[in-house]
Amino acid sequence: MKAVVMTGANQPWEVQDVPTPVAEPGQVLVKVHASGMCFTDVWATQGFGGDIYPQTPGHEVVGEIIDVGAGVHTRQVGDRVGTTWVQSACGRCDYCRENRPLTGQTAMNCAAPRTTGFAAQGGHAEYIAISAEGTVLLPDGLAYENAAPMMCAGYTTWSGLRDAAPQPHEKVAVVGIGGLGHVALQLAKASGLETIAVTHSPDKHELATRLGADHVVANGKELRELGGADVLLVTTNAFGAAEEAMAGLRPDGRVVLSGLDFSRPFSISSEGVPFHMMRQKVIGSTHGGQHYLAEVLDLAAQGKVKPVTEIFSLDRATDAHDRLASGRMRFRGVFTPHTD
Amino acid sequence: MKAVVMTGANQPWEVQDVPTPVAEPGQVLVKVHASGMCFTDVWATQGFGGDIYPQTPGHEVVGEIIDVGAGVHTRQVGDRVGTTWVQSACGRCDYCRENRPLTGQTAMNCAAPRTTGFAAQGGHAEYIAISAEGTVLLPDGLAYENAAPMMCAGYTTWSGLRDAAPQPHEKVAVVGIGGLGHVALQLAKASGLETIAVTHSPDKHELATRLGADHVVANGKELRELGGADVLLVTTNAFGAAEEAMAGLRPDGRVVLSGLDFSRPFSISSEGVPFHMMRQKVIGSTHGGQHYLAEVLDLAAQGKVKPVTEIFSLDRATDAHDRLASGRMRFRGVFTPHTD
Amino acid sequence: MKAVVMTGANQPWEVQDVPTPVAEPGQVLVKVHASGMCFTDVWATQGFGGDIYPQTPGHEVVGEIIDVGAGVHTRQVGDRVGTTWVQSACGRCDYCRENRPLTGQTAMNCAAPRTTGFAAQGGHAEYIAISAEGTVLLPDGLAYENAAPMMCAGYTTWSGLRDAAPQPHEKVAVVGIGGLGHVALQLAKASGLETIAVTHSPDKHELATRLGADHVVANGKELRELGGADVLLVTTNAFGAAEEAMAGLRPDGRVVLSGLDFSRPFSISSEGVPFHMMRQKVIGSTHGGQHYLAEVLDLAAQGKVKPVTEIFSLDRATDAHDRLASGRMRFRGVFTPHTD
Amino acid sequence: MKAVVMTGANQPWEVQDVPTPVAEPGQVLVKVHASGMCFTDVWATQGFGGDIYPQTPGHEVVGEIIDVGAGVHTRQVGDRVGTTWVQSACGRCDYCRENRPLTGQTAMNCAAPRTTGFAAQGGHAEYIAISAEGTVLLPDGLAYENAAPMMCAGYTTWSGLRDAAPQPHEKVAVVGIGGLGHVALQLAKASGLETIAVTHSPDKHELATRLGADHVVANGKELRELGGADVLLVTTNAFGAAEEAMAGLRPDGRVVLSGLDFSRPFSISSEGVPFHMMRQKVIGSTHGGQHYLAEVLDLAAQGKVKPVTEIFSLDRATDAHDRLASGRMRFRGVFTPHTD
Repeated sequence: MKAVVMTGANQPWEVQDVPTPVAEPGQVLVKVHASGMCFTDVWATQGFGGDIYPQTPGHEVVGEIIDVGAGVHTRQVGDRVGTTWVQSACGRCDYCRENRPLTGQTAMNCAAPRTTGFAAQGGHAEYIAISAEGTVLLPDGLAYENAAPMMCAGYTTWSGLRDAAPQPHEKVAVVGIGGLGHVALQLAKASGLETIAVTHSPDKHELATRLGADHVVANGKELRELGGADVLLVTTNAFGAAEEAMAGLRPDGRVVLSGLDFSRPFSISSEGVPFHMMRQKVIGSTHGGQHYLAEVLDLAAQGKVKPVTEIFSLDRATDAHDRLASGRMRFRGVFTPHTD
Repeated sequence: MKAVVMTGANQPWEVQDVPTPVAEPGQVLVKVHASGMCFTDVWATQGFGGDIYPQTPGHEVVGEIIDVGAGVHTRQVGDRVGTTWVQSACGRCDYCRENRPLTGQTAMNCAAPRTTGFAAQGGHAEYIAISAEGTVLLPDGLAYENAAPMMCAGYTTWSGLRDAAPQPHEKVAVVGIGGLGHVALQLAKASGLETIAVTHSPDKHELATRLGADHVVANGKELRELGGADVLLVTTNAFGAAEEAMAGLRPDGRVVLSGLDFSRPFSISSEGVPFHMMRQKVIGSTHGGQHYLAEVLDLAAQGKVKPVTEIFSLDRATDAHDRLASGRMRFRGVFTPHTD
Repeated sequence: MKAVVMTGANQPWEVQDVPTPVAEPGQVLVKVHASGMCFTDVWATQGFGGDIYPQTPGHEVVGEIIDVGAGVHTRQVGDRVGTTWVQSACGRCDYCRENRPLTGQTAMNCAAPRTTGFAAQGGHAEYIAISAEGTVLLPDGLAYENAAPMMCAGYTTWSGLRDAAPQPHEKVAVVGIGGLGHVALQLAKASGLETIAVTHSPDKHELATRLGADHVVANGKELRELGGADVLLVTTNAFGAAEEAMAGLRPDGRVVLSGLDFSRPFSISSEGVPFHMMRQKVIGSTHGGQHYLAEVLDLAAQGKVKPVTEIFSLDRATDAHDRLASGRMRFRGVFTPHTD
Repeated sequence: MKAVVMTGANQPWEVQDVPTPVAEPGQVLVKVHASGMCFTDVWATQGFGGDIYPQTPGHEVVGEIIDVGAGVHTRQVGDRVGTTWVQSACGRCDYCRENRPLTGQTAMNCAAPRTTGFAAQGGHAEYIAISAEGTVLLPDGLAYENAAPMMCAGYTTWSGLRDAAPQPHEKVAVVGIGGLGHVALQLAKASGLETIAVTHSPDKHELATRLGADHVVANGKELRELGGADVLLVTTNAFGAAEEAMAGLRPDGRVVLSGLDFSRPFSISSEGVPFHMMRQKVIGSTHGGQHYLAEVLDLAAQGKVKPVTEIFSLDRATDAHDRLASGRMRFRGVFTPHTD
């Protein structure tokens, strides 16, 4: 089969002919219909995930099951499924023993997880073998290319929103309107919350409004003047913008950090009315469990969230990677290895 | 192998020679060291679980893995493990699609779960094949006969306590000091909460005190005179006693129903200062996820909870059933098919 | 001044000339612009609030401050304010010592509260003296006749919705579309939640839809067929309908009881998949604190909730009472003692 | 009367003869029996609270009511009461309109609060006039000198513990064993939680153990080796130590910041397994409402928390201040203006 391959740290992506995987016991074999690109693909290529080469990247994978391994009772040939960054956990480490992650059948904190596109083959390929327990069934009627970005961008931002536990009457600001942010904005709007986009890109104002922003502001000062927000969903990896936006965070407000900034820590300022007097919180959030994933897929199937995508064939992998790495891909790239 | 068999509704238990099961793909074969008895065993014998006969009862099973089926990566021969009422879920029903149960690798609301002692063979036998995903690793140093009752009695009552989300400074009353209650009392005490046993059996006062009750009262009136409780853990199936105890429930108090009373509904009275003015809650609770199970096993390994047990060989199955069914078994019966 | 007076149990309301109250220390004197009618007014007339006669009913009071007593620093002449059922608490009973109610400056569980229309004069009058701490400032632009029903109908139902803590992606069903329910429906819709009206009155379907119901069903069976609801807001005092609606309550679902049914308790059935297996909750809810009241007033000022009202002059008090008591007043009656 | 007076920024404290205050309407006059010293007294003296001079410091005040102003219904002559940092709120600012603070009768975020020892006279004096709504009744049997430090040190740390919402089976680490920390440790222990003291002062190990620490460690590395903590109560103003202790914070763990560090922000590191992958939280916490205060006073009355104090007469004010400012007062100083 054809597959995108990272051949080494900081090497260009290649499209290679590699053996088609088979469904081992406990696994399913999936014909990949769509595989979304996440900025993590670039980090993997830069070596931040360790020396995993050669490896096929891609952890926003959806497609159709064409074979089922021994001992799989929950999936069938013909099922439309997807998988995420973590397919399965070791079941034996300290965190697994505690079943700490509470993430359905995955385990974010596992010491030795089967990670898609890192420890195991990723989705930028014609076929992929996946641990059956790490798959979710896709709702009917949801197009593959719209489903794929839900497996990480959608899952991450929805987890962030849910972890913030927004209450009726609250306002949610989304900081950064890019690959994650443009999804987060739609999700907040679909939840019936008053939404504010925080972006210093004037050219994103119109798009933000179209995606559901009730207001668009450039920074924390403007956010405060608007009355502030109860929740800040930080969807950018530039923590500086997020810290600055806290100027518009209301009492009892929550900042949700769904990612990290390799260049610096996140700092909680003691200036003005301090954080503790405002009873605010900073919440670390990641994929929060398959129930969250099921919810965001349902919203996508209802058409309440739809990623803005650029579609690529596998042959254009090198080009796609370069667009993503250089910041030219503004929203979400998706490979469609099979379109039949 | 030898196994206890329910041959039909309301038939006496028999000990039969049956084929030893094998570890199918995705399963582990366990040499049973201890298998606890739950009153549900009696209900299963009375037909409340449907026409499941012939079947071996028992869903508090612990032992050692002696074989591992294909595709099992999380368990090894030699592992000390246990399983609970639900070993695995179908993965396809509406609730499974939602991953609604959030119960680690089990699925209480699944439409077609593999249930131990109901849909699948239970633990009152020399060996049992279990879905690997439905097993938990036992902590070192925890004796099998003390571990077994944790798989349902411990798991249920700890889930109830956790679902009540007791806060520092709160008081917990345990209604009924029997198979579940005598465990619940120890768990509440181990959590550092002020504990009150509610029981009309004067002969249980001393035991309740020994198990950790700071106070023992006979009913809701006495509970109220004591200042009341913030949480009522209802561990009896006699809802009348539980309703009556609500007279001692404080404002913002929570009643946790961990079981059911086949004879009647649970009624919330409008008398006195009403329920809604007190902002009270009635909470339905069941096995809440493998993280809860891991916690209660840890408490057992620390010696903070220890079931009061009567030990039986398989040969004494009929006698054991009769003691349980007739109410003569006050706490927890445990079969020990192998003692080597 | 003119005031409506309950002269004795089950006596017709009278409009009498009574002395105009004065602002004692700690109080404000309010010129009443609107005073909403609640079914509790009927119960007070029937004697359920004790022998409080003669007394002026009405606990949904709004108007303008025309005098301020000694020691009042938080209110000024000219302020537009409202008050609710409980103006102030004793500060000395067990519950007050615990500050248990957490209700801003009121105290629902106080043993000796100053209750509007019960222990103290109510709002169906030209003027009323109110404990300053029991008043809230009304938002600008909110008409008095729309504000008054927020002081109990709005406050109660919003508290119910908030106490249910609905999460993004959840569905809320409102059981009963009357004085409380027609407000609850608008509030749920304004919160961005998918809403379902449960009513057996076919003639209320169109209104329910107009008020924001995404769906209208007749009972729990229809609710279940629709996929069920995560929250049932019970706004009727007929508990039978509420219990029946539980057939459509989803796993982890919550029933909010905001009132009581003098004729019977609320029963949690053990039939079908039992309550505890569904991990459901029944939540008692009442006025939950002035922050909730502030929120619902804000929603009213934004026009997101607007009560359906029948306006009465004080002279029509007897007629108004009879319409309410006989069930002919379908939504909310409001007295407007001053319209200048 | 005699009162401690801050005469200007960075001036030595003086003991002066000043007019005895009177109980205005809405106020009570209290004969001060004990007034605790908080490090905030030093900051006030250094000018961090603005140009408030001349002013009497002290916001941990307890004593007996000897007069009651007009309009006060909740307090009586002879009541044993205390007050805290904020006696009352303006009732008119944006936060008061929202009743945002939910703090009973105080309002931490009010734009113009009546603050004890800042906007209004503090407690280091023979008498003080206090807004009646800002007082709490002391439990019987609680000695004044043990009650005073509960009004800030106890209230703050208990709020921190409650805001962390520790669950059964969780472990709590207290970072810093000084004026706040030695109280926090006792409170965590009294709540039945497994407790760990984090202190680099070897000479505090024995004391920490005596106050209830199950373990004592020097830093985050040792904390992690011990298995980690679910909650870090940061009771030191040196944020460096708190950040370092996060190395021992478990998944889903919470860091509670109850104070601030004027010299630097609090930084959340992206090193190791990042914060968001651990789903951790940083929680800002301050006085959380009079129900928390009532709870901590109850624990003090039960003897479950007892501050370590140094007692001073008013005459020794300058000396007491210097000991506190220079770090020589290791736990809590208390003035006892009247000992009869």
